[in-house]
Amino acid sequence: MKIGVIGLGLIGGSMAKAIKQKTEHMVFGWDQSESVRYSARLAEGVHDILEDGDPSGCDLVIIALYPSATVDYVNKFASNFKKGAMVVDCAGVKREVCQPLEAVAKDNGFIFCGAHPMAGIERSGFTYSTSALFEGATMILTPYTGTDIAPMNELSLFFKSLGFAKMQVATDAEHDQMIAYTSQLAHVVSSAYIKSELSPKFKGFSAGSFHDMTRVAKLNETMWTELFLDNNDFLANEIDDLIARLQEYSKAIRGKDSEKLKSMLKEGKEKRLAIDEVKEFE
Amino acid sequence: MKIGVIGLGLIGGSMAKAIKQKTEHMVFGWDQSESVRYSARLAEGVHDILEDGDPSGCDLVIIALYPSATVDYVNKFASNFKKGAMVVDCAGVKREVCQPLEAVAKDNGFIFCGAHPMAGIERSGFTYSTSALFEGATMILTPYTGTDIAPMNELSLFFKSLGFAKMQVATDAEHDQMIAYTSQLAHVVSSAYIKSELSPKFKGFSAGSFHDMTRVAKLNETMWTELFLDNNDFLANEIDDLIARLQEYSKAIRGKDSEKLKSMLKEGKEKRLAIDEVKEFE
Repeated sequence: MKIGVIGLGLIGGSMAKAIKQKTEHMVFGWDQSESVRYSARLAEGVHDILEDGDPSGCDLVIIALYPSATVDYVNKFASNFKKGAMVVDCAGVKREVCQPLEAVAKDNGFIFCGAHPMAGIERSGFTYSTSALFEGATMILTPYTGTDIAPMNELSLFFKSLGFAKMQVATDAEHDQMIAYTSQLAHVVSSAYIKSELSPKFKGFSAGSFHDMTRVAKLNETMWTELFLDNNDFLANEIDDLIARLQEYSKAIRGKDSEKLKSMLKEGKEKRLAIDEVKEFE
Repeated sequence: MKIGVIGLGLIGGSMAKAIKQKTEHMVFGWDQSESVRYSARLAEGVHDILEDGDPSGCDLVIIALYPSATVDYVNKFASNFKKGAMVVDCAGVKREVCQPLEAVAKDNGFIFCGAHPMAGIERSGFTYSTSALFEGATMILTPYTGTDIAPMNELSLFFKSLGFAKMQVATDAEHDQMIAYTSQLAHVVSSAYIKSELSPKFKGFSAGSFHDMTRVAKLNETMWTELFLDNNDFLANEIDDLIARLQEYSKAIRGKDSEKLKSMLKEGKEKRLAIDEVKEFE
């Protein structure tokens, strides 16, 4: 296949490198930054550059841009995609991307499918990209209702050839709701946690839990602001629900309600143990 | 030295094993459970058992019980401690233990010092104890005002011989306030986080941040209930402050206030990066 990768940041750069190193496909990249395009060629992360990002002739196009830029890109090149080509994005929210593009894909004869690779590090940019980023990871796919199974099967095999261990299918709304809880809320909590006036005095008083709790506060604020606001309904609900639960703990602790607190902690332990029992890739 | 270790759970068991394996001291253990006492001898975790937990003749007594049980133990055997002996506890709160014992130590001629080993795993009991538990960890010490430096120096060298990398000195109140933030709050958040009705559906939608955020929900609810309630003033304040910060995120996200949210996330990132720059053991 001839594959285009649009946006050569951490995710796009890693996709390009994984394709080049692990498959026989030809990979053509594009990034709005000239120095990133140059770096990608210098690092042999791509076979060549897609001129102006034009996807003409590509059998598969992987778009690794922010959500709004993804929609803009597909609209701009809507009539250039090869008929029957597969086009996938990698954005962390799916309704905002998939909903406006359903008609565009249908009208222009290409197949669009939302995708979200569950992989990342607390760094961004091509410099940190690596062909190993997706090893063992889950790829969430959000095909439209009625998408043929045959091209989706091909796509699934393709992603597995890059190292992904599992495909998880969901609607765009299911994806956005779950991600609001499992990922976005964690980033919000981490950012809020670190802002105590006690945090600069942590040295000598911290163990693993403090570091785990604050790790993902180290985020790219431009990207996460867009992701949070594109999913603001689900995410704000998750934050408010967590606040309500924390208020119960505060009340039981301040009021020294030992029996209540113990049963709340026991319930939390049991829910966490239930998670441990689920094997991620069975 | 002849050393007594009172309470052979995860911490006490690990202390006894570390003393036996890494030093030339004689270590005598005690646990209220007969099967634990038997296991400790069988596993050669102690040289012998301290009959009825009586600390007579010990040069150093390490108490690894819950806070209230620690105070009860010291009161019970107050007149049996050897004159000039060092007595330390290992509880996760310090005011509740150190304040009632100051006069007891003075009146009975032994030296008491609060201690809190910053080490642990999400398991409890002698079965999980290991001589390696304290390797590289910090030991927080909370001596009373006016405690002589010479015995504290000895104590510090002793703990380093068990693997501790650093001693951190604090007042009991400083300890309790910092621990409320760096450790207890993390356990509360983790327990509250896991209780979303979405958590059982996490499979296929989670990455590292979800697992990090919920890891310490797997706790011993009996012990943590006592620790939280013994520190309820500082802890409830930390929970309420975090709630107030989360409410700001919720407001900015629900209201789609992009500039505000971005600056909040940027501030969180910078505070976390400042933490990374501090070398824990310099």
